[in-house]
Amino acid sequence: MELDLSQHVGQLTASLVDIESVSGAEKPLADAIEAALRGLPHLTLHRDGDALVARTGLGRPQRVILAGHIDTVPVAGNLPSHLERGLLYGCGSADMKSGVAVQLRLAASVPEPTRDVTYVFYDCEEVEAERNGMLRLSRQRPELLAGDFAVLMEPTGCAVEGGCQGTLRAEIRATGKRAHSARSWLGRNAIHAAGDILGVLRGYPARQPEVDGLTYREGLSAVGVRGGVAQNVIPDECVVTVNYRFAPDRSPAQAEAHVREVFDGWDVTVTDVAGGARPGLADPAAVAFVTAIGGVPRAKLGWTDVARFDALGVPAVNYGPGNPEAAHTVGEHVALGEITECEDRMRAWLTA
Amino acid sequence: MELDLSQHVGQLTASLVDIESVSGAEKPLADAIEAALRGLPHLTLHRDGDALVARTGLGRPQRVILAGHIDTVPVAGNLPSHLERGLLYGCGSADMKSGVAVQLRLAASVPEPTRDVTYVFYDCEEVEAERNGMLRLSRQRPELLAGDFAVLMEPTGCAVEGGCQGTLRAEIRATGKRAHSARSWLGRNAIHAAGDILGVLRGYPARQPEVDGLTYREGLSAVGVRGGVAQNVIPDECVVTVNYRFAPDRSPAQAEAHVREVFDGWDVTVTDVAGGARPGLADPAAVAFVTAIGGVPRAKLGWTDVARFDALGVPAVNYGPGNPEAAHTVGEHVALGEITECEDRMRAWLTA
Repeated sequence: MELDLSQHVGQLTASLVDIESVSGAEKPLADAIEAALRGLPHLTLHRDGDALVARTGLGRPQRVILAGHIDTVPVAGNLPSHLERGLLYGCGSADMKSGVAVQLRLAASVPEPTRDVTYVFYDCEEVEAERNGMLRLSRQRPELLAGDFAVLMEPTGCAVEGGCQGTLRAEIRATGKRAHSARSWLGRNAIHAAGDILGVLRGYPARQPEVDGLTYREGLSAVGVRGGVAQNVIPDECVVTVNYRFAPDRSPAQAEAHVREVFDGWDVTVTDVAGGARPGLADPAAVAFVTAIGGVPRAKLGWTDVARFDALGVPAVNYGPGNPEAAHTVGEHVALGEITECEDRMRAWLTA
Repeated sequence: MELDLSQHVGQLTASLVDIESVSGAEKPLADAIEAALRGLPHLTLHRDGDALVARTGLGRPQRVILAGHIDTVPVAGNLPSHLERGLLYGCGSADMKSGVAVQLRLAASVPEPTRDVTYVFYDCEEVEAERNGMLRLSRQRPELLAGDFAVLMEPTGCAVEGGCQGTLRAEIRATGKRAHSARSWLGRNAIHAAGDILGVLRGYPARQPEVDGLTYREGLSAVGVRGGVAQNVIPDECVVTVNYRFAPDRSPAQAEAHVREVFDGWDVTVTDVAGGARPGLADPAAVAFVTAIGGVPRAKLGWTDVARFDALGVPAVNYGPGNPEAAHTVGEHVALGEITECEDRMRAWLTA
């Protein structure tokens, strides 16, 4: 599979979407991106697993980072891509292969940006934090992520989105007592007991706090449930996996304490947590970028690796084509006009 | 693994328990039983998959069948077997390797019974009906199951148990709408919706009808639940597998109609159904057996292959060592005294 970086950014997005890259299976796409960038003389290329970092080395006084993940959620019958009335449909079209297409176009066609640029393409953003390619890079090659300002090209509908919410996953376990299902009254059915866990979730009042002038919106949802021993056994265990999305006024520790309080009395195991990031839009580098791009910044609801950059001390914002509300849906799509707009504004910023 | 059929029936039970034989993995045990029976000159042996049929051919006017399944539910940390104060503990000890031990003891040591005897050992009783080894035999070698009366040696605590309840499995499906879990309010969470299915199960009023003088007791239970797309996706499907145990006054069709009515408005898929059997204790062959064994017959609650014999026109009852309420539990066990009692009474009946 060969990528032609000279084609229109919309066509390039379609090419990227059509190379399936569900988390953990990004290799074919990483190979294609590596092959496309390898021949560009103004970039130094590094590969780490299925992550790639391409850097200019012009000795500019500032270095900016453009970063995007190349993995997608599982395909839901929505491949290959197709174009309809100016909208490109397909798994990953919005989240975030259109942003990756903009990165690749800029990498190929802006050999002499006014700031040095680091392009980061990474794997496993859509799964648990420990597998995240950016986390791996930050541990193994932190020097590759150094910079003065970072733009995460996650879908924001071409608006600058500040900060991000944190995400926590926990397993809530209901227990019971096994018995033969022909004599169900001798056991205690753990799946029936899990009805109370679902009751808590259904009645959960989600917060909508304001943080540094931006309004966030939380959520607590079941993302998985499993239970059952055999087809004729009253099960003694049922596990509901919940995902808590928390505003950046709560730390990971506070988020965990909250979930434990909500499920007081149940067996709670936190399996995965990634803190959010406060907006940080007062930083001079962020102000300069926002001024160049235009528009009114708003809160980022989805967790993104701005939190990772935040932890590395690099100011970062989210900005990219695609409606974040279309992400992870069967009908995921992106407007070609937004991809073009994003490429144009980023190009103007990098060459001004 | 070699089975010594001359040892005490309790020791033989322990040997059988220690040969793990979860449904679908009965081969080692079937091989051991085949090897033990192969050398007995008064028996003709047939093998079909992991089922075995051994028959005397003495030209007696009556033929009786002693049948038992050799598979167990999944092991729950309760192997190998151990003996404690006259109780033998271990997966399958009650359901029903003690009954199988009695069959094997009789097969080896009663070369000239007063009735011809067919010993049936079969696989996959603990799983969905379509895999049942007795069903397979009844389709492929019905002549091997011909007879005047059958005893299923399922655990009954050495009481004669009449008939059996039917069993039906169905998948009840809750649907929703996928969305990114960071914006949960844009989706409809199918796992949350399944809370209503669990509510129906928790509030279900089970019947206890009297049929031909025996009292049955029904139950409707979740035996499995699954749901979830990815760790950050609001799931659009959640499936609860339910098991309905129904008294023999309801046909499979009536049982299905009942489950569909209970879950009216939900997507219901019946995956497996096996009808029950009315007590049938008025049959002369059953009367003769009950008289020989003694005691007061009662209702069989668990589904057994008496229903299969019932369908083949062979009167059949349940009778064997072991408390049926211990079956499928972590602490499954059988009293050595019951195994011995069962062997003695059956031997007396077959030699009278």
